[in-house]
Amino acid sequence: MENEHEKHMKRALELAEHGRGRTSPNPMVGAVITLGGETIAEGWHRKAGEPHAEINALRAAGGKAAGATMYVNLEPCSHHGRTPPCAPAVAAAGIARVVVGMTDPNPKVSGAGIGFLKNSGVETIVGVLEKDCLRLNEAFVKVMSTGLPFVILKAAVTLDGKTASRAGDSKWISCEASREMVHRMRGEADAVAVGAGTLRADDPALNCRLPESEKIKDPLRVALDPELILSVDSKLARQAVDGKTVVFTLEGAPADRAEALRRAGCRVIELPPDGAGMPDLRKAMLELAGMGVLSVLLEGGGTLNASMIEAGLVDRVAVFIAPKLLGGADAKTFFDGAGFPRVEAGVKLSNMSATVVGDDILIQADVAK
Amino acid sequence: MENEHEKHMKRALELAEHGRGRTSPNPMVGAVITLGGETIAEGWHRKAGEPHAEINALRAAGGKAAGATMYVNLEPCSHHGRTPPCAPAVAAAGIARVVVGMTDPNPKVSGAGIGFLKNSGVETIVGVLEKDCLRLNEAFVKVMSTGLPFVILKAAVTLDGKTASRAGDSKWISCEASREMVHRMRGEADAVAVGAGTLRADDPALNCRLPESEKIKDPLRVALDPELILSVDSKLARQAVDGKTVVFTLEGAPADRAEALRRAGCRVIELPPDGAGMPDLRKAMLELAGMGVLSVLLEGGGTLNASMIEAGLVDRVAVFIAPKLLGGADAKTFFDGAGFPRVEAGVKLSNMSATVVGDDILIQADVAK
Repeated sequence: MENEHEKHMKRALELAEHGRGRTSPNPMVGAVITLGGETIAEGWHRKAGEPHAEINALRAAGGKAAGATMYVNLEPCSHHGRTPPCAPAVAAAGIARVVVGMTDPNPKVSGAGIGFLKNSGVETIVGVLEKDCLRLNEAFVKVMSTGLPFVILKAAVTLDGKTASRAGDSKWISCEASREMVHRMRGEADAVAVGAGTLRADDPALNCRLPESEKIKDPLRVALDPELILSVDSKLARQAVDGKTVVFTLEGAPADRAEALRRAGCRVIELPPDGAGMPDLRKAMLELAGMGVLSVLLEGGGTLNASMIEAGLVDRVAVFIAPKLLGGADAKTFFDGAGFPRVEAGVKLSNMSATVVGDDILIQADVAK
Repeated sequence: MENEHEKHMKRALELAEHGRGRTSPNPMVGAVITLGGETIAEGWHRKAGEPHAEINALRAAGGKAAGATMYVNLEPCSHHGRTPPCAPAVAAAGIARVVVGMTDPNPKVSGAGIGFLKNSGVETIVGVLEKDCLRLNEAFVKVMSTGLPFVILKAAVTLDGKTASRAGDSKWISCEASREMVHRMRGEADAVAVGAGTLRADDPALNCRLPESEKIKDPLRVALDPELILSVDSKLARQAVDGKTVVFTLEGAPADRAEALRRAGCRVIELPPDGAGMPDLRKAMLELAGMGVLSVLLEGGGTLNASMIEAGLVDRVAVFIAPKLLGGADAKTFFDGAGFPRVEAGVKLSNMSATVVGDDILIQADVAK
């Protein structure tokens, strides 16, 4: 049986969800205010820089907040960011009880908001539907606890696991509904990343091609390009005037090429090599988190994906499986490279699920920690 | 709304299903006899050589068959096989009406049973739940209409499409529940086939390892072995005393090896080469159909599978996807070989579905015709 607390927390989570793709680098937060079991106000965080969920709910409640209960999926903040802190506002409004889904994942501030409320005489209950709350803000939690963004590896394969024919043809493996869903995933991610192989083969635009009404945003476009092959005539460079193209390359990459790309508006960042001669991928991810990127949609080929997986940087895989067989011992898969020599040593996944998307089946799974 | 006819035909199909894995080379058939809308008798074909479904139902009905309606998923036979024909027995028992799911798929006899019933004054209705009836006996239909068995390609892969690591390790890709399901599939198939790569790597037994109470039968074990590498000490050869090991090899294979395998009880059949130097796979399948094999479970590696798929001999794929990533540009997939150069030219699948099996997801799909 769902209890009263869970019912309202579920609603707070629904409200929070409205902000998906828009709140970064902030978390998604929803708030519900109840009095005598009845909902009297709701709010959610709409966009970074705008008021937090608690403030929106308090404004909606007005004078009725005194003596009421607030449900919020994340611990109210107690520090000044771009907006004033929420915990003092909650206490000042006379809220009698705050039910919190999860504490702030930032170990430096975690518990401070709850502590403030307690010290102000507000009753607090923590951990209602905590698992759902953690899942909703998994990208925020990842960045706060590790400094690294949450990475979703996306691939489209035939049922026999090929991402392209031996001749490199990949148009189109997946169906239209799947490709549309990828554009939605791009809108929800803060960055989309590809490697040099994809730059060379596809000249990708990496934008979110949905009707304006459905479009959330274009993500940051990220190229992992050790030899700086990205041309100033490429789609990524021509779009760079919007300031959203980032190119990671190796230290010592040709200065004239880097300069040309910078003039075109690209942010070119030189990194030391990792063991495989790639720009150090962990450092690249740290850089992205520093730009406020919580989530990365990795749309790489088998080589970049292999490096990312082997470096332990991938959190989830989303594989669109098309009802086709393509064959070929030399055809690409989404995870090439050297691979693991033994099954036992391979990457273990959890929470694997299957969903029908048009003609395809989307399998999603988390990298087990 | 399900009508009266469909309700009873559905029951006939359920009864027929009881014979799965046991009736070959006959089809699965169930029969229901009703009087005034009430079921008065049921029967099904239990095993090749035993009475057909219609006869079992008539025996159960006894004197009450006169004036009754019989539902049967397949046209009653009119020819003498191992048992006397059914259509005359149905008419003789005084059945007033026969509702048939589908006609006999053998073009030479199709319609003869229905013709006999009509000429005997029995009302006949044909085509109720025909699609379900065709699906139930798809293997029988395939053999009757093409002379070739129905081939199901089974594979176990990691989510990145690998059947083994680059070093050849494949123990275990899939979970215990999936492996148990494969033993069930073996019990339901008339033959299980592997190629030389699997013989060399795994020395497979290819039997149905289930508790005796759940076991249907051991299928015919088939090796496609161009160079006759199968050793007389292999599990397949040591089991051959039961007469159920068939080895297809190339004409001119070493006579001493062939002789040794024959002495061990294997049936060694020499075939001309196909274009790829394999024993002609179409001929091998025709030979199997001639032995009464309706269905083959293909448990080959990527090379044999490629030859079978490219020869158009595979009807369905059943892929167990494990929550693991193994990686490796050189790791095997279940469909290697040369493959198709363009996505558009690849094999198209239909009726793709996903089912959870233990930790794995089983994806099944039919090769589109």
